[in-house]
Amino acid sequence: MIGNCVIAQSGGPTSVINASATGAIFEAFKQDDINKVYGARNGIEGIINEKLINLSKEDLKELEYMKTTPSSSLGSCRYHLKHYDEDEEDYIKIFKVFEKFNIQYFFYIGGNDSMDTVMKISEYAKLHGFSLKVIGIPKTIDNDLMGTDHCPGFGSAAKYIATSVLEIALDAEVYETNIVTIIEVMGRNAGWLAASSCLAKLNDQTVPDLIYLPEIAFDFEQFKKDVKNIYDKKGKVIIVVSEGIKDKDGNHIAKMNTRSHDEFGHAQLGGVGVSLKSFVQRKIEDRVKVIELGVLQRCAMHFASLTDLEEAYNVGSAAVKYALEGHSGFMVGIHRLRNNPYESITQLVDIKLVANHEKMIPREYINKKGNGLTEVAYEYLSPLVIGEVKLPIENGLPRFIKLKDF
Amino acid sequence: MIGNCVIAQSGGPTSVINASATGAIFEAFKQDDINKVYGARNGIEGIINEKLINLSKEDLKELEYMKTTPSSSLGSCRYHLKHYDEDEEDYIKIFKVFEKFNIQYFFYIGGNDSMDTVMKISEYAKLHGFSLKVIGIPKTIDNDLMGTDHCPGFGSAAKYIATSVLEIALDAEVYETNIVTIIEVMGRNAGWLAASSCLAKLNDQTVPDLIYLPEIAFDFEQFKKDVKNIYDKKGKVIIVVSEGIKDKDGNHIAKMNTRSHDEFGHAQLGGVGVSLKSFVQRKIEDRVKVIELGVLQRCAMHFASLTDLEEAYNVGSAAVKYALEGHSGFMVGIHRLRNNPYESITQLVDIKLVANHEKMIPREYINKKGNGLTEVAYEYLSPLVIGEVKLPIENGLPRFIKLKDF
Repeated sequence: MIGNCVIAQSGGPTSVINASATGAIFEAFKQDDINKVYGARNGIEGIINEKLINLSKEDLKELEYMKTTPSSSLGSCRYHLKHYDEDEEDYIKIFKVFEKFNIQYFFYIGGNDSMDTVMKISEYAKLHGFSLKVIGIPKTIDNDLMGTDHCPGFGSAAKYIATSVLEIALDAEVYETNIVTIIEVMGRNAGWLAASSCLAKLNDQTVPDLIYLPEIAFDFEQFKKDVKNIYDKKGKVIIVVSEGIKDKDGNHIAKMNTRSHDEFGHAQLGGVGVSLKSFVQRKIEDRVKVIELGVLQRCAMHFASLTDLEEAYNVGSAAVKYALEGHSGFMVGIHRLRNNPYESITQLVDIKLVANHEKMIPREYINKKGNGLTEVAYEYLSPLVIGEVKLPIENGLPRFIKLKDF
Repeated sequence: MIGNCVIAQSGGPTSVINASATGAIFEAFKQDDINKVYGARNGIEGIINEKLINLSKEDLKELEYMKTTPSSSLGSCRYHLKHYDEDEEDYIKIFKVFEKFNIQYFFYIGGNDSMDTVMKISEYAKLHGFSLKVIGIPKTIDNDLMGTDHCPGFGSAAKYIATSVLEIALDAEVYETNIVTIIEVMGRNAGWLAASSCLAKLNDQTVPDLIYLPEIAFDFEQFKKDVKNIYDKKGKVIIVVSEGIKDKDGNHIAKMNTRSHDEFGHAQLGGVGVSLKSFVQRKIEDRVKVIELGVLQRCAMHFASLTDLEEAYNVGSAAVKYALEGHSGFMVGIHRLRNNPYESITQLVDIKLVANHEKMIPREYINKKGNGLTEVAYEYLSPLVIGEVKLPIENGLPRFIKLKDF
């Protein structure tokens, strides 16, 4: 079907979400069946509000820079699209805009919630006989999407986290005084980001002494034993902890911030490091340093994974090819072929298997005590951080861009 | 004078303090007049306590890796050496150890406080007729040493800060909602680190809207006007602030943490971002994000400045050459020859001009309103972040080392 396409980005940014967008944009430029390539401003909201921008008019050189610019150059949103049975209003607006702009292909880059949007719009299109093809492009540092071996964005976050943990550990070691260092990383429900810190090794020793994940019920008594054990041996302890760790009753260890729930009802966490700090200070050692790696986990393009960047670009371009083959209502997944040498291909995944699901760390990836990772996890994680991105540099800093019309 | 030498590291680590150490070590290996090259564990404490390790016995390949390993591989200390007129005990121990190990050359890498140690030991040696030559090697991310155009360690911290500010700004822009982002950087008295964020540019626009430095008395009313002004125009505000900003009476804006003063009596700061956050929330906008860049500012070798790394190495090797020429009681300074192309040489600086002094940002580097930098500052700062370090990589992560005997 000849027509135009629209690409949009949603949810929290990553270092490589723009690589996926440029993969889709450049592939769409190449396709004879696609005339104009639009970007929607701020995700699905840009479609609802008719904020479509013709990307063919952007400077091509600038679009090239977009591939290595972190965060979402098209803007993002956290808009929860209601089910069409419940409220059709948004759908009527969306399909009016699609009609007006002759949109035949819609590519949505995002995580769980965005794949829910892909599912609903593709279902609505089928129900009402629209020829629109909708393909989801995975993106999340959380690595929690089903139907894909791993998620674009995760490898770069993992590389940044493991490297930062290495550097922080070296920094923490310089004085003779004992110290407990707590490094708090993102991860609300799935602990993949904290797990990735197991990649950090010095002289073949894993750097984090203890890693706590939301998949394992957190127990303060066990924690005390774990820390005391390392502390008595070495005096210095490096702990990595997911912001989302919970006790056996499902209560978050981080103090819940009462007024912060996002539009999807997810609790906004933070402060687990501070909670653990005061516990360690009372029970073990007064010198405790808490380091929150913060948003740089998702936007530190300056030390991104080349494997991740290339895969992100590939899932973007594959989405366009799949749509032109007539597919709709799918997400592009990554299938790992082998580890040595690492190789992956893209695959189509039924969007229903992805939308609103979350992939947790399998139990066999986690050690028996629940405070570290196994060799299986290491094998899974390590290929994802391979390769350094050659960033365009100007005056010693990365040459990032802001698109003209965004 | 033929004999042995000892190298030690002191104060807070930097990304390139090991580059200076390796510069000195490899230069010492080359010199006929130096037999054994010792490293002291944990700075001057290692000399007092006779913890000297023969670096010639370390694996040479590992020492090569040390050049690009952040933090202080020899260990550090924050030991305040009393004046010899007040208490001679430490000096007697130190010179006994020097005699025992036939130390003729002592190289001490550090900041203001370490240069005080260099001064006292070199004076004591002269007073008592010891032939010992003592040379200080500058190191501090704070860039506050007198007698040198800039300090090794600063360029890498500046590059990391400016890049992180760029990435954080891109991350903060993705949603349509208004938001005030406060980025808190290190800098107790001198604002060089916060100032370096002015290097961050997107489409030729300086990324931080407002930069607050300890050199300018902070005024909440003016701050409110500054923020409101940007907020009304753009809705999104990026603020960079030094941890050490003070009001006109010299009171720190960060809440003083009552029990934390370091061994030199410096107040341990932190939390200025949080103080400003609650002010902005009360006066302007509820959505405020505070990001503390934390220790990665001083140890993020993964995006260090090549200019900085090379200069750090050079001041290390120059120290050895100067000592062998017979100089003592000096620090190696960096003299900037020109900006385009950037070129610098080393110079000898009388240690009395350095010890216990601090170099603040000159007023002409700061704009009239005191909330940003001038073009002069930009010209000074920009060459220092040029060049990327080619890190040895293993399994996708930097290949850092820990020396065997440290």
